[in-house]
Amino acid sequence: MPVPQNMRAAVLAQAGEIRLGERPVPVPAADEVLVRVTAVGVCGSDVHFYHEGRLGDWVVDEPLVLGHESGGVIVAVGSGVDPTRIGERVSVEPQHPSPSSAETLRGDYNLDPQMRFYAVPGTDGAFQEYVTIQGHFAHRVPDSVSDHAAALLEPLSVAIAAGRKAGFAVGSRVLVTGAGPVGLAVAQVARAAGAAEVIMTDISPARREAALRFGATSALDPVAEADAVAGAAVDAFVDASGAGAAVRAGIDALRPAGRAVLVGMGLAEPLPVTRIQNNELVVTGVFRYANTWPTAVALAADGRVDLDAMVTGTYGLADVRAALESTTAPGTIKSVVEPQR
Amino acid sequence: MPVPQNMRAAVLAQAGEIRLGERPVPVPAADEVLVRVTAVGVCGSDVHFYHEGRLGDWVVDEPLVLGHESGGVIVAVGSGVDPTRIGERVSVEPQHPSPSSAETLRGDYNLDPQMRFYAVPGTDGAFQEYVTIQGHFAHRVPDSVSDHAAALLEPLSVAIAAGRKAGFAVGSRVLVTGAGPVGLAVAQVARAAGAAEVIMTDISPARREAALRFGATSALDPVAEADAVAGAAVDAFVDASGAGAAVRAGIDALRPAGRAVLVGMGLAEPLPVTRIQNNELVVTGVFRYANTWPTAVALAADGRVDLDAMVTGTYGLADVRAALESTTAPGTIKSVVEPQR
Amino acid sequence: MPVPQNMRAAVLAQAGEIRLGERPVPVPAADEVLVRVTAVGVCGSDVHFYHEGRLGDWVVDEPLVLGHESGGVIVAVGSGVDPTRIGERVSVEPQHPSPSSAETLRGDYNLDPQMRFYAVPGTDGAFQEYVTIQGHFAHRVPDSVSDHAAALLEPLSVAIAAGRKAGFAVGSRVLVTGAGPVGLAVAQVARAAGAAEVIMTDISPARREAALRFGATSALDPVAEADAVAGAAVDAFVDASGAGAAVRAGIDALRPAGRAVLVGMGLAEPLPVTRIQNNELVVTGVFRYANTWPTAVALAADGRVDLDAMVTGTYGLADVRAALESTTAPGTIKSVVEPQR
Amino acid sequence: MPVPQNMRAAVLAQAGEIRLGERPVPVPAADEVLVRVTAVGVCGSDVHFYHEGRLGDWVVDEPLVLGHESGGVIVAVGSGVDPTRIGERVSVEPQHPSPSSAETLRGDYNLDPQMRFYAVPGTDGAFQEYVTIQGHFAHRVPDSVSDHAAALLEPLSVAIAAGRKAGFAVGSRVLVTGAGPVGLAVAQVARAAGAAEVIMTDISPARREAALRFGATSALDPVAEADAVAGAAVDAFVDASGAGAAVRAGIDALRPAGRAVLVGMGLAEPLPVTRIQNNELVVTGVFRYANTWPTAVALAADGRVDLDAMVTGTYGLADVRAALESTTAPGTIKSVVEPQR
Repeated sequence: MPVPQNMRAAVLAQAGEIRLGERPVPVPAADEVLVRVTAVGVCGSDVHFYHEGRLGDWVVDEPLVLGHESGGVIVAVGSGVDPTRIGERVSVEPQHPSPSSAETLRGDYNLDPQMRFYAVPGTDGAFQEYVTIQGHFAHRVPDSVSDHAAALLEPLSVAIAAGRKAGFAVGSRVLVTGAGPVGLAVAQVARAAGAAEVIMTDISPARREAALRFGATSALDPVAEADAVAGAAVDAFVDASGAGAAVRAGIDALRPAGRAVLVGMGLAEPLPVTRIQNNELVVTGVFRYANTWPTAVALAADGRVDLDAMVTGTYGLADVRAALESTTAPGTIKSVVEPQR
Repeated sequence: MPVPQNMRAAVLAQAGEIRLGERPVPVPAADEVLVRVTAVGVCGSDVHFYHEGRLGDWVVDEPLVLGHESGGVIVAVGSGVDPTRIGERVSVEPQHPSPSSAETLRGDYNLDPQMRFYAVPGTDGAFQEYVTIQGHFAHRVPDSVSDHAAALLEPLSVAIAAGRKAGFAVGSRVLVTGAGPVGLAVAQVARAAGAAEVIMTDISPARREAALRFGATSALDPVAEADAVAGAAVDAFVDASGAGAAVRAGIDALRPAGRAVLVGMGLAEPLPVTRIQNNELVVTGVFRYANTWPTAVALAADGRVDLDAMVTGTYGLADVRAALESTTAPGTIKSVVEPQR
Repeated sequence: MPVPQNMRAAVLAQAGEIRLGERPVPVPAADEVLVRVTAVGVCGSDVHFYHEGRLGDWVVDEPLVLGHESGGVIVAVGSGVDPTRIGERVSVEPQHPSPSSAETLRGDYNLDPQMRFYAVPGTDGAFQEYVTIQGHFAHRVPDSVSDHAAALLEPLSVAIAAGRKAGFAVGSRVLVTGAGPVGLAVAQVARAAGAAEVIMTDISPARREAALRFGATSALDPVAEADAVAGAAVDAFVDASGAGAAVRAGIDALRPAGRAVLVGMGLAEPLPVTRIQNNELVVTGVFRYANTWPTAVALAADGRVDLDAMVTGTYGLADVRAALESTTAPGTIKSVVEPQR
Repeated sequence: MPVPQNMRAAVLAQAGEIRLGERPVPVPAADEVLVRVTAVGVCGSDVHFYHEGRLGDWVVDEPLVLGHESGGVIVAVGSGVDPTRIGERVSVEPQHPSPSSAETLRGDYNLDPQMRFYAVPGTDGAFQEYVTIQGHFAHRVPDSVSDHAAALLEPLSVAIAAGRKAGFAVGSRVLVTGAGPVGLAVAQVARAAGAAEVIMTDISPARREAALRFGATSALDPVAEADAVAGAAVDAFVDASGAGAAVRAGIDALRPAGRAVLVGMGLAEPLPVTRIQNNELVVTGVFRYANTWPTAVALAADGRVDLDAMVTGTYGLADVRAALESTTAPGTIKSVVEPQR
């Protein structure tokens, strides 16, 4: 299929305003490939940029294409990339770090301060028909990984990164607070890693029910069953809620020397520092991911993690606004945009 | 059920000679429990002691009761142990380290130089009706763990220890050489830990077939399929064969910075040192286990690891000799002695 | 020298009231030794108990002997300890963990929930002429370690534990906030570990001057030189102040993936969670120490760490109150009680 | 100073034959700098290539410039490098890994299979007046690092890499076998890292004497004092000899769970596998280094490691042959070529 000169793109013009426009198809640099995008997951950060026009220190002051959970098919390659890759189905790792920072050189390329990342002001994302990415960040997926799942390897990568920092291992006892799409992915990773128990909490009964379908061995009401949570003495706690009460409860639920990984953003309440000290708890966060895609591909390919079942709605490129607004609807786990529609 | 004064024990009098005798039932020390033994797995080291009267530097110069893979029911407790534990079904961690060695204090109690271990000259094992063990090394098992499985948490613990040193994680690519009972347990642990690939090799077609039933994603002939093994570029390699050719092939199969864990004993051939150096491979071994039982109980309890299916023959206490000699019979994976029979 | 039946002890009767009394000399249990105490350092927690009658959840509701930084000479041993140890000069590791907790078994004996620790309500400390301790926690010191230094291996152990968690290594760039005795010990450990830079901050000019004598490569005013601190991009940060502004500044000063260890207690202000998340910082604390004494002895014995120079005043047993009250006097780094005086 | 078009280079034409020739000055690529070389250390691998025309699988089948321990001054930069770097004194990290291999991405860029490395067939080294290197691998050195020391940060980096794998820490007890330049650098790093004991062995009395000047706390004859070595129970062992007897003795000298790092090449004798297994020793090697230069600069800059004192002879570019042949002369520690002479 020939690559056209122009393409459709869903552009965030300003807070609350998405416009479908026409843009030139990007040209891959020497080490890049051009990907015809088949699916893009909608992330909470996209929704935040859409509503607020900003996220933390990032401000949308020029039109921006959102979307950073994407997959597709390689349709062209730069001069330094093997042309036999054309036709390959891939999942896109949406980052472009500097090759020479101290962080990149020691393997923490996600922490590179000069990072260019999809859908962050300055770098367009994937709610458009074509994207470019460095060849080694276009990760081949086998046929057993669907187009939707290829896109959702991105949130799965966040979950894998969280699981590594939390030390998930065979026999681990794990607490995950917040049964949204990231929490559910974390729970699935925990079970895939051999966790003996995966306790999830969420204030929504529907989400607790979803938790039990996606890896949780028990799903608790954080208020009514607070005592059971507090006494859990888990090895690892991952917060995927961003809620202060959940984080406090999770840290209280850790055994001595347990590990807390804070994934949910926007936490407004203080951490219980004395408890962290007296029990030598380890608290950290994840900021995206590095070196996770091979693992993500493997987990999705053999069915250990089910990403397709997390998709609760699909949208064409003209309906990105509806996709963004769908995320708070009851029953939504993950909305997916199909840019070729 | 009252505890009798005497009990039957199968005693290794000298190399090749097992006699069923009568001995006083041991009395638990203050921190110990008395366990009525229901099942004892037969290990290769028992067989080695039986045939040779020695193993490495250990020499059987006094009558010795073999057997260190055991489970049973607590029937009495020492003065410092909670008496409500009487009646508890337990798996026995068959070691008694010094509490004050540098190794014990830093958590490597298996490496304590003053260790007393079941069925090593100086300390009797479990081919008898009753044994004593410190209360915290009699690990409670739930009903979902059978008597046989309770005994086999011991070889599972070896596999868990190997998997920790090998760094098994979600997405790992693992090679296990030797599809005997330890190799099969390692393969099951690898799968439980989320390994994407578990390649096993064994020269026996029957064992390769067993491998596929116990966690291997592929089972290769190490001679006919040597090239496939050599090119595997696995993250982790565990040898459970003790065969020089297998170890060499396994080290060749590692990716740069990969990890090799040597479990099989008696290796006579040199390691490929230059390859280890040029690829910064990490080579180590396991000597029993520490802090593995809670994980072993969890893996067996929810069926992630199937130990019952590994049992290919059971024997009464009068038939310990037959049990020991059964281990080399075709089709044998694990023989179990039931001391109450 | 014969051991008397009774001894003098400085007892905290209630908040603000220390009385010198007579008590029976304790009798060592089978695995314990009896130590004639030569020196005891005064710790901030002693001072807190003295003034408040409590510390966190611990309440002094019965008379309590304070003091947990001690050394002396073994004058008697329990039945299970080698009697040739009598006469040995030792430093006391003032803890008595359970040997069978999960924490102890995996090497984190300091986190054992059934710990008995010197000078915590329920267990007397060392402001008395004789103390008992398990034989392996009475650590032999060579002649090059003075009596004062033997006592101060305890706060040095806190510093070593902090340095391990902070990942001190050759070439590390380290920030230590708070130049009291613990901070100065941490700085000395950092330099001994090969840190390239050890930046200390303290609001007191006198303490900043002390910092430069005890390992700091620079000593900054946290207010006037806040910008230099904020831009330091250190690998590791250890707070020894317990002050919210210092902790916040220290976390801001970390490079991506840097590590913060919170030693100072009583922190009242929230941690900057978003910064921790976006930079994958690791935050933890130290609660006492485990397996540090051999290192502490080595560092003090060859002069890498100078503990004697930290002693700014000595007191007899009748003057424990004065010793406790001296800690806030200008110029005090560490006060030492000599119970035989 | 203007950059000329041509330069002198000492070229290995074939085994045993070094010729001084004229070559064009290389032109830096966009991300590279051009360095006017001031000093180049002579390494054992250079000597091996010189005498044998090969090293392991590498064969010199075209003329090759040797030398990979170098420093100098930046005299030109590629289009992507900050031109204000011209004039900067630098130490050269002589490697050029692929930016996209799995090894590079996870921080093990030294293990990248597509590595181009100085003085390995296919890539010229530094026995010439000018070299190019990527900008981030030309590491700035302060005035306190001499030209000779800037070159010798390369072998220091090997020592730092070895120390990291060996786990050098405050209080460590370390054995280093072989008191040549790498062994001496390892000993210095061990002391800088706070090791309590650094035992060195060498069969040469002169080298043992040198050991005591460069960080060793004791220097033993491996034959006459074999018992003292065997009983050392060290935490870490680094072999810098490549001699089978030394490696065996070193592994015997490790405490349980100790770590052995094999740096010396050409080991012909088997490792004691049973001992490795029964004590869970960890054996690995170093292959060059990654992420070591900032640490190396820091250690040299403040005098923790003395590299200048290791230089026992200097040579002009016309005397590279003499420099190579000097390495086996009595009293030689490190020979340095000064290419501008």
